Amino acid sequence: MEKLQRHIEHITPIDEIEFESIKTHFTPRRVRKGQYLVSEGDEAKHEYFVLSGIYKVFYVDEQGKEYILQFAQENWWMSDYPAFFKRKPATMYIECLVEGEVLCLTLDSREKLSADFHKMEHFFRVKLTNGYVALQLRIKLLLSGTPQQRYEEFARLYPNLMQQIPKKLIAEFLGVSRETLSRLYQ
Amino acid sequence: MEKLQRHIEHITPIDEIEFESIKTHFTPRRVRKGQYLVSEGDEAKHEYFVLSGIYKVFYVDEQGKEYILQFAQENWWMSDYPAFFKRKPATMYIECLVEGEVLCLTLDSREKLSADFHKMEHFFRVKLTNGYVALQLRIKLLLSGTPQQRYEEFARLYPNLMQQIPKKLIAEFLGVSRETLSRLYQ
Repeated sequence: MEKLQRHIEHITPIDEIEFESIKTHFTPRRVRKGQYLVSEGDEAKHEYFVLSGIYKVFYVDEQGKEYILQFAQENWWMSDYPAFFKRKPATMYIECLVEGEVLCLTLDSREKLSADFHKMEHFFRVKLTNGYVALQLRIKLLLSGTPQQRYEEFARLYPNLMQQIPKKLIAEFLGVSRETLSRLYQ
Repeated sequence: MEKLQRHIEHITPIDEIEFESIKTHFTPRRVRKGQYLVSEGDEAKHEYFVLSGIYKVFYVDEQGKEYILQFAQENWWMSDYPAFFKRKPATMYIECLVEGEVLCLTLDSREKLSADFHKMEHFFRVKLTNGYVALQLRIKLLLSGTPQQRYEEFARLYPNLMQQIPKKLIAEFLGVSRETLSRLYQ
């Protein structure tokens, strides 16, 4: 839980007594490579804080084609957010690419933490603000970026994911064909 | 300011004394059709709460091509968020399409409201949550939706914008060519 404590304190100071109460809301879970945390149709019960490992959040269209919405690694948060926040069945999958451990948080716990601790409401607001900005920049890149610009932005933002994720998946995340990416970067 | 009060109370109850203090942070501004609230390179000083009118948030690439990130209408919030939250120069434009009025809020005021009132921190967190989910769904649609699916989703979500915004701008927002849209919907 130390990682979570440091992660929260990066945004807002919390004392030991507060953290003792905060941490009771999180349940650790080990995840093996290839394992699914969420599948389409499941109840999207949890938001996950990643302690270790690499994960992909994706969905599959009617033709069986896969689209990656998000990768996640250490200190990132992930969920099928539209389903999680609206308490609807999942439309996405979360698969583990590199084994690791996550902390699970239910929506009720998230709301209770936010109501009980102004600091935690602040923490979640700051995380959402950063997430919102990142999504806007991603939309900007999807609307106007060339495959090369998208790839270079990805490499700039996530150098360590570049090392650990197959190019095929990166191409999928960027909405670029694998062939185009291979032509650009051999 | 009544509209703002109702808008906040839709998410969290506030009493008259609290609102008296909250509203001092907002400055009203009338906007005429064709007027720009923000231009590329400006300081992105404000987030805007829309009282009336219709606005588009867009950016322009090096070739002069325009990309629409967001439309905004009554009760919506808008800004060049990456610039506003990071206190960097704007990379986007906000133009008024139909004249109206907005309330301007600085980042310092937004942070102060959140720090002074747990309720306002909650309010902004809920708004960001909804915004985050909407952006994820937009990315999903951009990655995998056909022009027809994108258009139909837009029409379903924003029937009144359909009436008031030229098809050309809707096509731009959806990342679909105007010709494709015209072929589908004559």
